[in-house]
Amino acid sequence: MELFGYYRSTSSYRVRIALALKQLEVQQLPVNLLKGEQREAHFLALNPQGRVPALKIDSGELLVQSPAIIEYLEEVYPQPALLPQDPVRRAQARGVAALIGCDIHPLHNVSVLNQLRALGHDDAEVNQWIGHWISQGLAAVEQLIGDQGFCFGDEPGLADVYLIPQLYAAERFNIDLSGFPRIRRVAALAETHSAFAQAHPSRQPDAP
Amino acid sequence: MELFGYYRSTSSYRVRIALALKQLEVQQLPVNLLKGEQREAHFLALNPQGRVPALKIDSGELLVQSPAIIEYLEEVYPQPALLPQDPVRRAQARGVAALIGCDIHPLHNVSVLNQLRALGHDDAEVNQWIGHWISQGLAAVEQLIGDQGFCFGDEPGLADVYLIPQLYAAERFNIDLSGFPRIRRVAALAETHSAFAQAHPSRQPDAP
Repeated sequence: MELFGYYRSTSSYRVRIALALKQLEVQQLPVNLLKGEQREAHFLALNPQGRVPALKIDSGELLVQSPAIIEYLEEVYPQPALLPQDPVRRAQARGVAALIGCDIHPLHNVSVLNQLRALGHDDAEVNQWIGHWISQGLAAVEQLIGDQGFCFGDEPGLADVYLIPQLYAAERFNIDLSGFPRIRRVAALAETHSAFAQAHPSRQPDAP
Repeated sequence: MELFGYYRSTSSYRVRIALALKQLEVQQLPVNLLKGEQREAHFLALNPQGRVPALKIDSGELLVQSPAIIEYLEEVYPQPALLPQDPVRRAQARGVAALIGCDIHPLHNVSVLNQLRALGHDDAEVNQWIGHWISQGLAAVEQLIGDQGFCFGDEPGLADVYLIPQLYAAERFNIDLSGFPRIRRVAALAETHSAFAQAHPSRQPDAP
């Protein structure tokens, strides 16, 4: 498999964690978003939306959108499982993943920040915007996750795959996490886990 | 089951379509987003994020986030299926759903539009913002869906569950769909389908 991604992209980072948890080998093909490589003709020919991540599977087909890619990996490479067996518990884990994937991350995607700057907002206003969405979203996540271990128990799962990259973004944007003890517990635990370490932006081939 | 929703909410509309396609009965409990009922204490006690939709299942547990709710319905009430059997085709359908659910809808959610107004943007600027994200996102959807029938074939599925509510929003915001013939074909077909008719905002108990 080949992964088109960018070291600092939150959604690429999610896919890297899922691949690492499942111990799947992948060739990384970095797409430099700051240089606009995602809008170059050869990449648009592959993925018309011009976004990362995109996963080329061994049959040659290209899968797009991190939620779809991660569910694909879970279906085709079921062990270790990212989701529990019980449908309600699966929905709880997917609920936290969707809250992060729909209600937090899209609001501070690089394309949104560029649009805000085009509307005349300076860095202070853009950072306030980012802080608003991340803080509000993580406050909801804090109430939905469990009291010990990873988000939902002793083993990392789908919610952790989404939360850890979101916390990397929160750190970049200097978000105060002191009010979120459960989230900080999960973050500390993930730091000790080899799959999360392997997927970290600083460890990627395109990291500066 | 009880569905907390709002007639005009894009994500509530998705869940209503999924329920209708699977012919599941649900009691609707409207939450008036314009009156701020989602921020009232009794609703926040149920769903700390203060958002709709939320589905109370018969065991009493509350499921949140439309992507998680719809996957739950697919797992517990598998027929008729919203997703095909083949993992790659499942990923393609989920890719379109995620594109709409992550890259279009979150950018014109009512909370985001309120935040833009708080930053001093007038209706014209807010409408331009909305148009930018819907048009750009639908242009990508147009390239990802199939050449006949619903998004991916003769029967409606997950991508249609997301697309039709997004088109309702596009219509409200006067987005030009003339460049998207595949999308317009799906919209015309859905208009003839009873489940989509039943789930339409105009048919809900809280519609004006």
